[in-house]
Amino acid sequence: MGKVVTFGEIMMRLNPPGYLRFVQSNTFEATYAGGEANVAISCANYGLDVAFVTKVPAQEIGQCAINAMRHFGVDTSNIKRGGDRLGIYFVEKGASQRASKVIYDRADSAIALASKNDFDWKEILAGATWFHFTGITPALGGELPEICLDAVKTAKELGVKVSCDLNYRNKLWSKEEAGRVMATLMPYVDVCIANEEDAADVFGIHALDTDVSSGKLSHDGYISVAEQLCKRFQCEKVAITLRGSISASDNNWAGMLYDGKEAYFSNSYSIRIVDRVGGGDSFGGALIYSLISGYDCQKAIDYAVAASCLKHTIEHDFNLMSVQEVESLAAGNASGRVQR
Amino acid sequence: MGKVVTFGEIMMRLNPPGYLRFVQSNTFEATYAGGEANVAISCANYGLDVAFVTKVPAQEIGQCAINAMRHFGVDTSNIKRGGDRLGIYFVEKGASQRASKVIYDRADSAIALASKNDFDWKEILAGATWFHFTGITPALGGELPEICLDAVKTAKELGVKVSCDLNYRNKLWSKEEAGRVMATLMPYVDVCIANEEDAADVFGIHALDTDVSSGKLSHDGYISVAEQLCKRFQCEKVAITLRGSISASDNNWAGMLYDGKEAYFSNSYSIRIVDRVGGGDSFGGALIYSLISGYDCQKAIDYAVAASCLKHTIEHDFNLMSVQEVESLAAGNASGRVQR
Amino acid sequence: MGKVVTFGEIMMRLNPPGYLRFVQSNTFEATYAGGEANVAISCANYGLDVAFVTKVPAQEIGQCAINAMRHFGVDTSNIKRGGDRLGIYFVEKGASQRASKVIYDRADSAIALASKNDFDWKEILAGATWFHFTGITPALGGELPEICLDAVKTAKELGVKVSCDLNYRNKLWSKEEAGRVMATLMPYVDVCIANEEDAADVFGIHALDTDVSSGKLSHDGYISVAEQLCKRFQCEKVAITLRGSISASDNNWAGMLYDGKEAYFSNSYSIRIVDRVGGGDSFGGALIYSLISGYDCQKAIDYAVAASCLKHTIEHDFNLMSVQEVESLAAGNASGRVQR
Amino acid sequence: MGKVVTFGEIMMRLNPPGYLRFVQSNTFEATYAGGEANVAISCANYGLDVAFVTKVPAQEIGQCAINAMRHFGVDTSNIKRGGDRLGIYFVEKGASQRASKVIYDRADSAIALASKNDFDWKEILAGATWFHFTGITPALGGELPEICLDAVKTAKELGVKVSCDLNYRNKLWSKEEAGRVMATLMPYVDVCIANEEDAADVFGIHALDTDVSSGKLSHDGYISVAEQLCKRFQCEKVAITLRGSISASDNNWAGMLYDGKEAYFSNSYSIRIVDRVGGGDSFGGALIYSLISGYDCQKAIDYAVAASCLKHTIEHDFNLMSVQEVESLAAGNASGRVQR
Amino acid sequence: MGKVVTFGEIMMRLNPPGYLRFVQSNTFEATYAGGEANVAISCANYGLDVAFVTKVPAQEIGQCAINAMRHFGVDTSNIKRGGDRLGIYFVEKGASQRASKVIYDRADSAIALASKNDFDWKEILAGATWFHFTGITPALGGELPEICLDAVKTAKELGVKVSCDLNYRNKLWSKEEAGRVMATLMPYVDVCIANEEDAADVFGIHALDTDVSSGKLSHDGYISVAEQLCKRFQCEKVAITLRGSISASDNNWAGMLYDGKEAYFSNSYSIRIVDRVGGGDSFGGALIYSLISGYDCQKAIDYAVAASCLKHTIEHDFNLMSVQEVESLAAGNASGRVQR
Amino acid sequence: MGKVVTFGEIMMRLNPPGYLRFVQSNTFEATYAGGEANVAISCANYGLDVAFVTKVPAQEIGQCAINAMRHFGVDTSNIKRGGDRLGIYFVEKGASQRASKVIYDRADSAIALASKNDFDWKEILAGATWFHFTGITPALGGELPEICLDAVKTAKELGVKVSCDLNYRNKLWSKEEAGRVMATLMPYVDVCIANEEDAADVFGIHALDTDVSSGKLSHDGYISVAEQLCKRFQCEKVAITLRGSISASDNNWAGMLYDGKEAYFSNSYSIRIVDRVGGGDSFGGALIYSLISGYDCQKAIDYAVAASCLKHTIEHDFNLMSVQEVESLAAGNASGRVQR
Repeated sequence: MGKVVTFGEIMMRLNPPGYLRFVQSNTFEATYAGGEANVAISCANYGLDVAFVTKVPAQEIGQCAINAMRHFGVDTSNIKRGGDRLGIYFVEKGASQRASKVIYDRADSAIALASKNDFDWKEILAGATWFHFTGITPALGGELPEICLDAVKTAKELGVKVSCDLNYRNKLWSKEEAGRVMATLMPYVDVCIANEEDAADVFGIHALDTDVSSGKLSHDGYISVAEQLCKRFQCEKVAITLRGSISASDNNWAGMLYDGKEAYFSNSYSIRIVDRVGGGDSFGGALIYSLISGYDCQKAIDYAVAASCLKHTIEHDFNLMSVQEVESLAAGNASGRVQR
Repeated sequence: MGKVVTFGEIMMRLNPPGYLRFVQSNTFEATYAGGEANVAISCANYGLDVAFVTKVPAQEIGQCAINAMRHFGVDTSNIKRGGDRLGIYFVEKGASQRASKVIYDRADSAIALASKNDFDWKEILAGATWFHFTGITPALGGELPEICLDAVKTAKELGVKVSCDLNYRNKLWSKEEAGRVMATLMPYVDVCIANEEDAADVFGIHALDTDVSSGKLSHDGYISVAEQLCKRFQCEKVAITLRGSISASDNNWAGMLYDGKEAYFSNSYSIRIVDRVGGGDSFGGALIYSLISGYDCQKAIDYAVAASCLKHTIEHDFNLMSVQEVESLAAGNASGRVQR
Repeated sequence: MGKVVTFGEIMMRLNPPGYLRFVQSNTFEATYAGGEANVAISCANYGLDVAFVTKVPAQEIGQCAINAMRHFGVDTSNIKRGGDRLGIYFVEKGASQRASKVIYDRADSAIALASKNDFDWKEILAGATWFHFTGITPALGGELPEICLDAVKTAKELGVKVSCDLNYRNKLWSKEEAGRVMATLMPYVDVCIANEEDAADVFGIHALDTDVSSGKLSHDGYISVAEQLCKRFQCEKVAITLRGSISASDNNWAGMLYDGKEAYFSNSYSIRIVDRVGGGDSFGGALIYSLISGYDCQKAIDYAVAASCLKHTIEHDFNLMSVQEVESLAAGNASGRVQR
Repeated sequence: MGKVVTFGEIMMRLNPPGYLRFVQSNTFEATYAGGEANVAISCANYGLDVAFVTKVPAQEIGQCAINAMRHFGVDTSNIKRGGDRLGIYFVEKGASQRASKVIYDRADSAIALASKNDFDWKEILAGATWFHFTGITPALGGELPEICLDAVKTAKELGVKVSCDLNYRNKLWSKEEAGRVMATLMPYVDVCIANEEDAADVFGIHALDTDVSSGKLSHDGYISVAEQLCKRFQCEKVAITLRGSISASDNNWAGMLYDGKEAYFSNSYSIRIVDRVGGGDSFGGALIYSLISGYDCQKAIDYAVAASCLKHTIEHDFNLMSVQEVESLAAGNASGRVQR
Repeated sequence: MGKVVTFGEIMMRLNPPGYLRFVQSNTFEATYAGGEANVAISCANYGLDVAFVTKVPAQEIGQCAINAMRHFGVDTSNIKRGGDRLGIYFVEKGASQRASKVIYDRADSAIALASKNDFDWKEILAGATWFHFTGITPALGGELPEICLDAVKTAKELGVKVSCDLNYRNKLWSKEEAGRVMATLMPYVDVCIANEEDAADVFGIHALDTDVSSGKLSHDGYISVAEQLCKRFQCEKVAITLRGSISASDNNWAGMLYDGKEAYFSNSYSIRIVDRVGGGDSFGGALIYSLISGYDCQKAIDYAVAASCLKHTIEHDFNLMSVQEVESLAAGNASGRVQR
Repeated sequence: MGKVVTFGEIMMRLNPPGYLRFVQSNTFEATYAGGEANVAISCANYGLDVAFVTKVPAQEIGQCAINAMRHFGVDTSNIKRGGDRLGIYFVEKGASQRASKVIYDRADSAIALASKNDFDWKEILAGATWFHFTGITPALGGELPEICLDAVKTAKELGVKVSCDLNYRNKLWSKEEAGRVMATLMPYVDVCIANEEDAADVFGIHALDTDVSSGKLSHDGYISVAEQLCKRFQCEKVAITLRGSISASDNNWAGMLYDGKEAYFSNSYSIRIVDRVGGGDSFGGALIYSLISGYDCQKAIDYAVAASCLKHTIEHDFNLMSVQEVESLAAGNASGRVQR
């Protein structure tokens, strides 16, 4: 079914065990993750041929990041070695009324300081079917906006589909800068993934009557956001995730896929959360799989939402579910009975 | 109150810590458990004199299994040593919509390859009041159907009450084989424990209008199953557990005891699950205790269901509750207030 | 904003990891806590200048207790060294219908055997704004009732506000003894903290129509208790915590502050519990902070309840929340969305 | 080969993991041990029928201690339940020049406060072959000197051999008190176990030219101590352990058995220490086994020293070696080659 | 430098943490290893292109084994999925005089029951430079002797160098059977790796004057063994590892490489052992690397021995050293100074 | 005895547990340390009044570093909050022939980017007796050379003794730059601490006939280095640590103190290493304590070397020994016998 290539930062994720706060913990669980790395892992677990592209330092910490990707079968042969450090982020898991916290320590990472010469996109994308990145990659600054432009242009030339998750991070850039840079990349994007806040933050696109933090979801509002995105950037499809935050322990989760004409909504799941970091990325990975697999829009959004619902039950960023497990939930089997 | 003897396999249980998936874990918690071993532990914790009978290899892993039983005061002097391996099963704990998984690696265990000569039931059951086994034991194959027959016949001769939990495992034998073998054993069984699926799988006995995975429970259906079991095999009592699977994190749990004339239903508990493996066995163990103690049917089923409700809040297979703790819940104290 | 001084016992808390029962565990998490130590930690985390006064043995275990307080910035220079042992308590965390258990091993601790000469209250309270203790301290017996009396009298002389959490412990003294001793101390108390049971157990003050274990809360009943306390002891304010125990995993939590004229009720929170030990103390610590800060009664009770709600999501006794985090929840932000 | 009965205190042992100091650790490994409990475990592991007698509180912590003994097959049916607490000791493992540290918190334990009525020695020792205690038991004070006297007198009457490890603990009693009490018990002791310091501390018996802390051992000195002990108390045999402390990581270890006429010395082992606490007890347990087994003196001391050498390679107090493993080392196989 | 292919079993290795004995442990560290898998990992860490060939079950446990190999960059695309179980072995780490123990539970593993059709050696070995297996693979029985013969014949046809580590395991087959089967395979082997015992056990080839367990090594004896192996099977080279077992904590380690004419001895290293399982395999992996790299015999044996010396300092079976690290030690830098 | 002030960087130290390599570990132990922070901790543990001065970010990770210092009683009130990140270093513990590894990720830390205005040395050093820093602090670049100059000049003005550990780090600056900057600071240094390499690297001062990596120590060479340092910079005293690296597991350790006239050598200790990172800092901390305490030169060097010998037996950077423990070793008690 062709090869998927994802491009972005991979970081060391450090989190205290269980529900310990940062100030209580003297051990950290160390895993390696990032928006596009997470998508690559999802795809690999669905059996796709996937390559992840980034730059990591030529020491053991960089090697750990590579090993974490190889572990699940991701092709890491296009990962550049060099630079001084791997970005780090610290995650503290919330519970009930206490919110989870993420502290980033990602400045001056190897990928953030990468140069255009580090990546030969013609070679990297040769034989690829799909290219995925998120708004985080250009937000890292330096030459990355240009490198991303290079990548998506090359993809277009080679007939490679392009998906982008807007993923606005206000710690990395201003709304203005995000809007300006993303506007140069969006014309090459076939499938745009967002949540309502992203569209508003990056492009000033608003839906009506939706209060994100209240957990209320307005179907019409989401459709309106998708329509605007499609129109402005000639996207083929827009997918939106709908999170209802009851508390740090309980969320509702659903999604919508808009194909330029119609909007397809998934079921909504009530989730007891194990770890919600990476939830959005797992939606993207599953959506790519279902679109590459030629699923129709309803089946695609059902698959993507079921997959990302399951991600919330898995520790750390990576979604470690098989196609069979996702399809079982998408088909309505949510009873959680023991499988012997 | 006499001695309880249980007979069956004890295995090493390996599970990743917390909610980690198999592919994420590089440590396993190692405990030792099995249907009849779990029942023995429950009885020991209620203060009964209990012996567990099995065969384990004459090396350290077999010794660990014995130690795990001795730890809680179970008499292990009738455990045979020999054979090559202890069976193993791997447990991955599910959460929310993600189901728990069990992978068995139990073929050719010491007990599965045991011979009739390994067990002198006259001696083992001397002085016993109660003998318990489950459908898993004969399902292990080899000489075990015969050994079980030996055991229950001897029990009958010695006036020892016999209980059996049908516990159908489709990985171990076909429905046909199960039906054929269990039909030879059931005539010696005084108390039959089952869930609706077991009765259907093993004996083709069905209840009406009940969709197990939907979590809806039909009282009449359960009574009908119990009646059919009682009639076909002249059991004295039939007990049925009623599980409503909301998700891997939340279950409803109740039970019914039928004494050939009337059916007694327990309250239903909404449970936040810590570990549900062994839940059925803990019902059996508590039922044996309450029947040996001469509880009336309503009190017996209330005790058994309260006990097994509490098992779901305990890690690993063993139910580690005292009589006092179970009775407190059975009496309605479910508020979980701190006991200082 | 002046200095807070708290006085009482600090113990080693030993609990099995996660939901393991005592009989399953071969490791214990070791932290150090106690009613007044917990209050001191809360205050320190809100940026107050706090000193904790106690007596601990002059060996490493005593040192560990001191270090645990210094860790969060509490002044430990008035902690006396001497005696033979640090008190210990064992905590087993419950879940769902299984209650948490606390086993105390605190007899003959250094503080319980302390003498009046160990504490020079004039010196200790010099420059202080607030003095806090709980009913546990005099309950430890020996010279402690007298020492407490010394302390509160000195506080009064120096114009230091005094707060007391009744915190009745039936393992430590009888209701009669508690009533007798506490009645000598209460005249010096400005702010009295209690739950309904405390007032009844210690002073025979009852509210109507409230069944504590049922989780039903009667507003009028709580006001009546507060009124009686105020009248009998001329307290300035009475604060009452309102716990609705659904199960060991889920509680409702609210509070009331009565200023001698009017009663101010907080919102009620539905909490998924991580660790509820120390929940009451965190209410006291937050109340002291809000009163020292000059909050009006409504804001004070809102702050205190939000803070103690959050405590239930934190492992071990100490409440490790900042003012900003508490105020965010008090302002209504309970959605638990990830803070990046 | 008859039954061994040991009598004394069992405590909870809490130690930081690995080489962490007390002030670094926030978890403790919890095991249960004590001089006579350790001896019982050794004997059980050699296949002897063993009962351990003590008193532990009727709560979960006491139960844990019982379970720890049952785990290895020790008969715990004569353990009394009652009293308020289980004694605790804290162990910090040293390394190289840093010494290990033990902090005791054992005052007022259930056994220390036991009364004569708690133990019916006629019944307990019925059918026994051997009774063992150490100098720690009477040192606990209260009625224990009398209870010990009861026990050894009864043993004598019933023809049960008595062994005693002097095990002087200066934290528990003065040399004078120890000398006075032990002198009343020694006349009933058949086999006395000691190290050079014990004999000097308790009875003022000195060997010439031996500097314990220097690691130099004088054979003649040890023989002289044994002779004096034998003469004064009409012991049948005296066994002395010879420890050469190079550092906390490396010790030399040997032993001597004196049968009233001749002294038999074992080989000396150079040991890389894993955990040396319980090393002396493991010598006692193995000596009892070898004497009960009718080994000649040379074989007996070789077995006892090999067994206790191996103890130093095992975490925590219990010696978990089989007869076959001990005999392999006693026969000279110290190469440590992997056994597949 | 061409591709290395290794073929054999990969098992789950379960070991208690640290120095705990099996009977003390309730957690196991789970890694995945096996003679030929270990060699593949060594080669991958030296930067070689390596494929590992085996058969593992099509469930999560089999997947874990594959992931463990992919983690370090080994090509797993020729691993067959099928069969019922992954072999398991339990490792207990010894210390000082206490030997390490290995308990195998490997019968009926997927690879042991593999059929000739599972492996198309023409395809697998296409483009390969080197093929490695050990005596364990044919010892697994079933069709494996034939499959191995297939493999080495194909290798010869394709001009692929073949190395074999005799690795005799008496739990798997008799000396006679081993001798018979290995004699059919050896004619295709270019480089034979052995220790003195292997040659004696499998082919009855003895060296004079060497007592393996005493730790004394006779250079002449080893040369004589190598000469005999070379002559009998026309090997190009024979490499012998020389282990001097001082204790489970300390070993001496050296090696010899014989090229049919001359014998080249490495330095001998005194090693403080962290984990010696996999030590022999790490020698094989490093030898393959050095021979593929065209090192002369002295440099090759120096590299192989330095590499395998370092393996003894690494937990679990895999040798995780880089070429640079091995060469630094081979060049004499054994001081262990911190590398900043 | 006056207050000690130390100034420098504090970092998060992340190390895999035990002897795991970076590429094996998915958890890190997290502690907080740095050359001058380590010295402060040593002093605090000896009972000195100590303040540590640095700058850490105003988020939780920075708070953790402060808490780690407060834990042991260090005054942190002069620590500035600000900047973006805390420096990090990764430590992999070596064993036997495998060297330990340190990977630094410290660029752009809060302290490295601090400005002169952040520290008001007049205020900070008011009431101080001693000021300590190491060559690492100016090596961090930015304004730090200037800030250090400020500090030492102010110290001189206020009559505060100044000590400096040369501590050359080639990853931070070139020898030339180090020489140039340090030459401006040394005139204000009273006590200079170094190892032979430092003096050579920073100032080109060489001793004769000493091969550091060989573990051979030449007394005369060390005296010559000290003499040259004293002469060039008018130091009062020069202290040199003498490390003999046998392997990563075993080191010899000694030291020399030169007072401008005579050289005093300590004993040399053979150490089984637990963790040698921070060993040099512990020497500095103990030397400061002994000089402040007015010890004579021989006693001072004996104390400093005994203290730092003991540091090698303690996990992580901090030396957690009391005066009594250090003096016991300095007095010759190295037998490591259990202290009960």
